Amino acid sequence: DGNRRAGQEKSDRCAACHGAEGKAIIPIYPNLAGQNAPWLVQALQAYKSGARSGGQAEMMKAFVAGLSDEDIDDLAAYYAGLKP
Amino acid sequence: DGNRRAGQEKSDRCAACHGAEGKAIIPIYPNLAGQNAPWLVQALQAYKSGARSGGQAEMMKAFVAGLSDEDIDDLAAYYAGLKP
Repeated sequence: DGNRRAGQEKSDRCAACHGAEGKAIIPIYPNLAGQNAPWLVQALQAYKSGARSGGQAEMMKAFVAGLSDEDIDDLAAYYAGLKP
Repeated sequence: DGNRRAGQEKSDRCAACHGAEGKAIIPIYPNLAGQNAPWLVQALQAYKSGARSGGQAEMMKAFVAGLSDEDIDDLAAYYAGLKP
């Protein structure tokens, strides 16, 4: 399972679109606060693998390319722990 | 923009996994309550177009195959309007 504190430290680049507290800055992006961690892991892995393609998915693919499985678990734990 | 009431009427098949109030029944699925409507539209359209593939995306692709753009807009409006 991921580490929330480590996830927070890794979340700077996410915040530009998903907000400092996991509330998206504009509604074309999803809120992440309080989302289920296993789902977030699956979504991030899908961007990384290319299972999600086209449009904004290409942006996400670039962002997650450098993330390890541990990074992804940590980020998921962090956002899951935020108040929706 | 979508119609919340119409979306609710179309949401029966969604509720089996995403919950009657948009809270996923198990955490491998995402919560939808309070999610941003434009994001939900984009996600549903991505399943429909095949831009999301593999794993659970194949299940979603089957579910959304019969949805019109209006259906998708209505469902997004419905879930966006639920309390997170």
